[in-house]
Amino acid sequence: MQASVDRIRRDIDRINQYTGPGLGINRLSFTPEHQGAVDYVRKQLEAIDYEMRVTAHGNYRFRRKGDDWSQPAVTSGSHLDAVPEGGRFDGVAGVVAAVEVARLLAESGDKPSVPYEIIVFSEEEGSRFGGVLTGSKAMIGSLTKKDLVQMQDQTGISYIEAIENIGVNTSDWDKAVIHPGDINAYFELHIEQSLVLETKGIPVGIVTDITGIRIYRITYQGVPNHAGATPMPLREDSLAAAAEAIQAIESLAQGASGGTMVGTVGIIENEPNVSNVIPGRTHFSLDLRDIDRECLVNMSETIISQVKDIATRRGINCTIKMTADAPPVSLSNRARQALLDATKELGIKALEMPSGAGHDAQEMARVTDVGMIFVPSIGGRSHCPEEESRFTDIAHGTSVLYSAIRKLCL
Amino acid sequence: MQASVDRIRRDIDRINQYTGPGLGINRLSFTPEHQGAVDYVRKQLEAIDYEMRVTAHGNYRFRRKGDDWSQPAVTSGSHLDAVPEGGRFDGVAGVVAAVEVARLLAESGDKPSVPYEIIVFSEEEGSRFGGVLTGSKAMIGSLTKKDLVQMQDQTGISYIEAIENIGVNTSDWDKAVIHPGDINAYFELHIEQSLVLETKGIPVGIVTDITGIRIYRITYQGVPNHAGATPMPLREDSLAAAAEAIQAIESLAQGASGGTMVGTVGIIENEPNVSNVIPGRTHFSLDLRDIDRECLVNMSETIISQVKDIATRRGINCTIKMTADAPPVSLSNRARQALLDATKELGIKALEMPSGAGHDAQEMARVTDVGMIFVPSIGGRSHCPEEESRFTDIAHGTSVLYSAIRKLCL
Repeated sequence: MQASVDRIRRDIDRINQYTGPGLGINRLSFTPEHQGAVDYVRKQLEAIDYEMRVTAHGNYRFRRKGDDWSQPAVTSGSHLDAVPEGGRFDGVAGVVAAVEVARLLAESGDKPSVPYEIIVFSEEEGSRFGGVLTGSKAMIGSLTKKDLVQMQDQTGISYIEAIENIGVNTSDWDKAVIHPGDINAYFELHIEQSLVLETKGIPVGIVTDITGIRIYRITYQGVPNHAGATPMPLREDSLAAAAEAIQAIESLAQGASGGTMVGTVGIIENEPNVSNVIPGRTHFSLDLRDIDRECLVNMSETIISQVKDIATRRGINCTIKMTADAPPVSLSNRARQALLDATKELGIKALEMPSGAGHDAQEMARVTDVGMIFVPSIGGRSHCPEEESRFTDIAHGTSVLYSAIRKLCL
Repeated sequence: MQASVDRIRRDIDRINQYTGPGLGINRLSFTPEHQGAVDYVRKQLEAIDYEMRVTAHGNYRFRRKGDDWSQPAVTSGSHLDAVPEGGRFDGVAGVVAAVEVARLLAESGDKPSVPYEIIVFSEEEGSRFGGVLTGSKAMIGSLTKKDLVQMQDQTGISYIEAIENIGVNTSDWDKAVIHPGDINAYFELHIEQSLVLETKGIPVGIVTDITGIRIYRITYQGVPNHAGATPMPLREDSLAAAAEAIQAIESLAQGASGGTMVGTVGIIENEPNVSNVIPGRTHFSLDLRDIDRECLVNMSETIISQVKDIATRRGINCTIKMTADAPPVSLSNRARQALLDATKELGIKALEMPSGAGHDAQEMARVTDVGMIFVPSIGGRSHCPEEESRFTDIAHGTSVLYSAIRKLCL
């Protein structure tokens, strides 16, 4: 059976009607927009006799009514939260694909011996509470309830308060954690978010590894002073120091051997940020990724050492905090093989490739076999209003997903 | 005669009792705090038989009772308004010095043939209504009444409304404008707001020139994209471009011949400013100053050309807007010589130096001979609560000021 392009297009369009003000998609976790999108998915699944369970961690799980929730299921899903001014496909495509698989299973008339489950993770992007992959990390026990009391949004509301405010019962937190053996397999379809598939003209990617990531928050503390009266040699300019560091990061990441290293300074905050005052304090982020653990560790050490050297040479202070350190993840041979077999069966050309982006799949890989499908991103754009994919490509990927899941469920 | 350290300390401390809530000094023009400070000055001067006239522009002029207001006076003053969370000396030191000169003149028993006048300018910092040097610009006719109807504070009150609200009669606006010949000379004592005098251990600076300034707002427009999935060679990162430009600005300003050039990027604003998104749009300011007009123009052209080259090489867009262009001002030889003679007479070591900051003195220089005295700023800090100067240094500067003014008045 083939996935329906029309249903996929309709689901994606409807979900994206739930968006806040601003360019592109604005849907932070647990906001009314996010709840609207979850509710749309719930209604689609209830129409084919599924029921929803909200986990104590604020994730959403769906199984057919009457299915045994204690039996390990073959699962599939993604997330519905978006980065500010994000795109229409990141996360949404994977949720819609998982819903379409449920419809195809229902239409097939097959009687699966293993239950199928859809999972919608929350706060994958971390755009509301910081961090990333928060819902999936909580669900597999990598983040504790205490951790999520401490993670707060810009208004001081914690993750726990936010989910309790929308009616989630967080009391059985520990019981709701998923352990190895609790789930049969997890599959996730996602847009590639880069240009590789489009450039090669291949409609489906099968992910081999998910990149490792280290995230840092760096602060340079100089001396704010009068921009007119302070001669150049007497300055302790925190922004000029940050500019030097940003240049070094770009140049080091570009020069890394292997070609899979990426280094990004996405955030910069400058104080007092006034035209005629020399900046006194500048914060910036460093997001460094590679699929080779050793390269990632070595490069992060090289960069941090240069960041410190810049401060020392300029006579300013520097504080550095690592806020995330996720090793690269190799995906399971069993799940990967199921996807590869499905592409062969369907005669769809596929490319085995690494993922430069992080996904809930990498957290799930700690407790079960995980397979990931990429579909092409037109123009390679993502996390922005211009994010684009073809509905036909998403449907091809969904057909592969269905075929692999069906085999594992029967 | 020597200025009194005790009186200067007392005046500065009393004036700074007039401050609003917040760190440091908070005294915006025409607020009750500002009026309290003006009133304190008025009482000090009335005690030695001076009278106050509030100009239609909201500035405060003081002469001895019985002096002929139509006779060109030797004048001195500064301002009492402060930047938010500002320091105790910026402006205040110059007003207090001018008051102390009036006391010394009164105590000397001399009978000056030229009247002495104290001027307290309003809204020098521009912290309430935007712009800078507003009171002095209005007084010499560079800003019209219409201009000041349009300049509004954050609550929508215009400069004109604000001064009318405190009882200023603005009807004889044009008659109150000062033209060349109306004033004999203007002197201003000010804290240096930098480290030059402190570093060299010299108690008094005699200002030769006030810096020219060009201010730009620059925007790089790149492509926001996924920080993990976008390989380094495929990026159009607006922040990385800005970092390169900020480095170039610092390096070009440092390398400028003459040693008086300063280039500052004080503001940076980055979009979407999220850790895992490659920046797509970055705005930054450029504040470029020099006392040499030709150097300033040439350097600004060199920098802007490099800013454009960076965009071209990186394949991103760039928009540049010049928001201010004020030429440098050379101060009068006559007034400067009077100050230099005074330092020699008093045996006080003095350094001839440019002013990198703007002052009301530069507006007054359009209509009369202007001299400026700098006193050391401890630690070079200004426009912040840590702003510090020694009362003994201010007294030395005031003695120089008195000696020069006395000679021109007798």
